[in-house]
Amino acid sequence: MEQVRTILLHRSVYADNDKEADLLRAYLKDRGVFVVNLMSSPGAGKTTTLTALISKIKDKVRVGVMEADIDSDVDAIRIAERTGVKSIQLHTGGMCHLDAGMTKTGLDEIDISNLDIVFLENVGNLVCPAEFDTGASLDVMILSVPEGDDKPLKYPLVFEKSDLVIINKIDALKYFNFDLEKCISYIKARNKNATIIPVSAKTGEGIDEVAKYFLKKIVDFKEC
Amino acid sequence: MEQVRTILLHRSVYADNDKEADLLRAYLKDRGVFVVNLMSSPGAGKTTTLTALISKIKDKVRVGVMEADIDSDVDAIRIAERTGVKSIQLHTGGMCHLDAGMTKTGLDEIDISNLDIVFLENVGNLVCPAEFDTGASLDVMILSVPEGDDKPLKYPLVFEKSDLVIINKIDALKYFNFDLEKCISYIKARNKNATIIPVSAKTGEGIDEVAKYFLKKIVDFKEC
Repeated sequence: MEQVRTILLHRSVYADNDKEADLLRAYLKDRGVFVVNLMSSPGAGKTTTLTALISKIKDKVRVGVMEADIDSDVDAIRIAERTGVKSIQLHTGGMCHLDAGMTKTGLDEIDISNLDIVFLENVGNLVCPAEFDTGASLDVMILSVPEGDDKPLKYPLVFEKSDLVIINKIDALKYFNFDLEKCISYIKARNKNATIIPVSAKTGEGIDEVAKYFLKKIVDFKEC
Repeated sequence: MEQVRTILLHRSVYADNDKEADLLRAYLKDRGVFVVNLMSSPGAGKTTTLTALISKIKDKVRVGVMEADIDSDVDAIRIAERTGVKSIQLHTGGMCHLDAGMTKTGLDEIDISNLDIVFLENVGNLVCPAEFDTGASLDVMILSVPEGDDKPLKYPLVFEKSDLVIINKIDALKYFNFDLEKCISYIKARNKNATIIPVSAKTGEGIDEVAKYFLKKIVDFKEC
């Protein structure tokens, strides 16, 4: 296993983040590298879901992971140990989100020249990450069952922005008062085009479908 | 039940939030109104815990609740319906936290003249609310078992800042890989003075201890 490095990010100097994000997307498109911005609340299971997903796809595509965190480096080490893929830790220096400039700095550090897909695990937060375009080609969020089925009502922007909504911890559905159908209808009301996949990263249920989704997205991205 | 009003907050004009927060604390001290800033991730159980707690203390002290949210008003209505106490909804207009000026606006709207304690339910987010002093006399956070025992490592500031850490959903301990002792040691390493109370807002376990804690804090606040 390669040593996991930690990169301290600084607030970007660009005045226009949306423009920088578009430039970054074009840069990545030229190089055929598919970058996925992964958002969720703290503890919704971003790292566990990523670990399960990567195990399913790493023999077919070359995967890199950038773990953003305020302060710790537990996630990047965990990903690297469990999956063996290239993984770096990004420290946001207290900032609650990543912008396109910070994402570009991370991508330069991880070296994308031999990667097909890079997962960017954003800071655990449903508010700020939704407001800043990272330059990724795909926005994904994970909602977990213990958080409650009303979250699309309370944090609308992140649901509006996400191409894929993964509903995690469905093995705990019997334990929590969470109405899966109601939750899906709330998400669809905010974003009728969202793909929604219920999973349990713990038991592996649904992870095959997520893997299939990403492998198809990578093919589409490289072809068109 | 009084009609639940929704107040739209605007970014404060004050350059120095820390100074405004100190002024607000002094203003509240003069009036004998104890304000509690309640922070957590989305879905950790702020509203459910508050509902359980208020039912235990509302016959002894006069309680008000301000529910901050990006956009919805489900929480204020839920609190008002279930407890009968005065409750208003604060909309942050997309902002990820409350500052002292926004808190003061909310307090003016709820009318504190006949209240002993006001709970301010901050935006569900472990990052931004920890960075802005609201002017409250007490900072409280709720961590829930499904979020994981490593959260004090990943979101240190909110644990450092909190006088009381409530660990909620302990009825689900058998279901999640959450080491309560390890979590408590992580919290203590960040903040040795924090009071830590494990509870289940669902079953009511631990809520008496939380109620006792707040009733004592109110007496201390009014006396000294």
